[in-house]
Amino acid sequence: MGSHFSYTCQARCCVTKARAGVFHTPHGVVETPRFMPVGTLANVKTVTPAQLRGTGAQMVLANTYHLHLQPGEDLVAEAGGLHRFMGWDGPMLTDSGGFQVFSLSEMRQISDEGVTFRSPRDGKIIQITPERSIQIQNALGADVIMAFDECPPHPATWDEVKRATDRTMRWLERCFVAHTRTDQALFPIVQGGVYPDLRQEAAEAIAQYEAFGYAIGGVSVGEPPELIEKIVQVTAPLLPEDKPRYLMGVGTHKEMVRAIAAGVDLFDCVIPTRLARHGAALVQGDRWNLKNNRFRRDFTPLDDTCPCYTCQNFTRAYISHLLHAREILAFTLISIHNITELVRFTQRIREAILGDRFAVEFAEWLGHG
Amino acid sequence: MGSHFSYTCQARCCVTKARAGVFHTPHGVVETPRFMPVGTLANVKTVTPAQLRGTGAQMVLANTYHLHLQPGEDLVAEAGGLHRFMGWDGPMLTDSGGFQVFSLSEMRQISDEGVTFRSPRDGKIIQITPERSIQIQNALGADVIMAFDECPPHPATWDEVKRATDRTMRWLERCFVAHTRTDQALFPIVQGGVYPDLRQEAAEAIAQYEAFGYAIGGVSVGEPPELIEKIVQVTAPLLPEDKPRYLMGVGTHKEMVRAIAAGVDLFDCVIPTRLARHGAALVQGDRWNLKNNRFRRDFTPLDDTCPCYTCQNFTRAYISHLLHAREILAFTLISIHNITELVRFTQRIREAILGDRFAVEFAEWLGHG
Repeated sequence: MGSHFSYTCQARCCVTKARAGVFHTPHGVVETPRFMPVGTLANVKTVTPAQLRGTGAQMVLANTYHLHLQPGEDLVAEAGGLHRFMGWDGPMLTDSGGFQVFSLSEMRQISDEGVTFRSPRDGKIIQITPERSIQIQNALGADVIMAFDECPPHPATWDEVKRATDRTMRWLERCFVAHTRTDQALFPIVQGGVYPDLRQEAAEAIAQYEAFGYAIGGVSVGEPPELIEKIVQVTAPLLPEDKPRYLMGVGTHKEMVRAIAAGVDLFDCVIPTRLARHGAALVQGDRWNLKNNRFRRDFTPLDDTCPCYTCQNFTRAYISHLLHAREILAFTLISIHNITELVRFTQRIREAILGDRFAVEFAEWLGHG
Repeated sequence: MGSHFSYTCQARCCVTKARAGVFHTPHGVVETPRFMPVGTLANVKTVTPAQLRGTGAQMVLANTYHLHLQPGEDLVAEAGGLHRFMGWDGPMLTDSGGFQVFSLSEMRQISDEGVTFRSPRDGKIIQITPERSIQIQNALGADVIMAFDECPPHPATWDEVKRATDRTMRWLERCFVAHTRTDQALFPIVQGGVYPDLRQEAAEAIAQYEAFGYAIGGVSVGEPPELIEKIVQVTAPLLPEDKPRYLMGVGTHKEMVRAIAAGVDLFDCVIPTRLARHGAALVQGDRWNLKNNRFRRDFTPLDDTCPCYTCQNFTRAYISHLLHAREILAFTLISIHNITELVRFTQRIREAILGDRFAVEFAEWLGHG
């Protein structure tokens, strides 16, 4: 493998396992810890790349499963890859499609070979194997690509999760063999459900692979927040110290701050844009329904400490008006703010770690306060 | 009245009646001829003010009828007026609500006093009189406000149009009496349907009023394009030479270029954003359905001569993908291009007039070619 990727740890918290670092990719750096917005179908819903840049986002996700179904990875490759197709020249990451195959598709059949399912788009039978997932991700061309994993639902028995975790390990070997591009970093994923022993086994097994980063998957699939936290606390420290650690699908303030305290660096979640489309703003950790009557004549910004385009130019009353009038622009304005809020939250944590004030400054969030 | 408004003619075409000028308003200049995008409910649908600025738009419209129903002019006034409410610091114009009352509302009753109708929002009975329309527009605070007029449908008999035109003239007197703000310019509107004698009578009558600009209304209400053109050719030259002339609701390339040749300076139309929401792009005067299969793998910009954000950053294939995936971002990207296209078309005409090349350069559009 080439030297397109590297991770430098800049500071460690002296109380928790939190760290601040820089992850270098062919399309620029990601300063960690950092929240990553999700652009499922090669766009972050209702937000242009120029607006996205303004939120402070550095790395952006796209979903392999969705893009395989539509418009297809061949078309994206023909366009020059995901970056050029969607006009985002910063770092990008694609997931493996595993999570969506398991959570969204019908008529699913799993074997050691891979997963067969019916396309929700046109009913065609599709098979995704570890090799196929990597092939698709090679064609899409994101900087970071993910191993194809079996993501068991919650609840699942120890035996069921053990089987899925073992299969994920066998698939990982095939992913590394299939992966051909040196300008893409393949991240293995720790599975293991809610079982600490399985998480530990999986974490130790994937740590054997020389990779540029490692992920914790299979959380946020329906289990209670305390369990997520416990799993992360067990798993994160077992992953190599000198590489970035990515907690998949997690993105609330509380979950992020606690995962960072366990040593996690990267996060993604659809909530900032999904909440926006429901008229909800994230304001300093709270969720506000902007359709609420109390905002009708509130001529202050969503958050007067926020530097985003929305908070610098518009009032709660205006956004409330747009929502009541069913104007789509509301979704754009709230999405810009919500993404900025989550990115900024992780930036503030990063600054605190760099100044060794993290455990004190975020004591309340960490539950030590 | 104060000196907040002025119009300077910079050049006249030596073949047609076209002219290039500058209209000064309290929120900046409008270089004419110029297309004005429509922001019905205090936003140009799916486009932020920053994006709108990038299209080259100078003056933006909003609709009195819609804003009166929602969120109400009191709320907008409390927000500091339309400019501050929607974050647009350039020139703005509100229509009088007349056109919408006549075209959209139910249970309409017209008398000399005004118009009574049922609110489509909550069923309440609402009366709009000339005084009320001006009061609402004074509260909204746009730079240019419009007289409250009776807009007869098409077809309508000479007698029906005569009655509406006479009433519009009586209402105009009341509008001027009701108008209180010197930082807003009240434009009278010529009605008269498709009848040249009534148009002439009305144009001469409103020209008696000392105003900062004059409008031609009641076109584009269902009559054939040839009739619109004929009416504009009869009416425009009768309006004062030293003031801007605004043709309401018109905005196709052909209609604009021909109206400019008759001496019109300002235009508005919802087509750029409405077409965008139907997946249609305006490209050099044509309309393209971007959902069409031929764009699926077309990796060129919508228009490679276009300087807009969309054409500089995205391909037809990408926009087609967004439309097929039902991604709202498509509407934003197409709207940005479509508005730019119409503004740029009028800018090109303006440059041609300033260089006295208009009749030659636009001969094909004018039908002389």
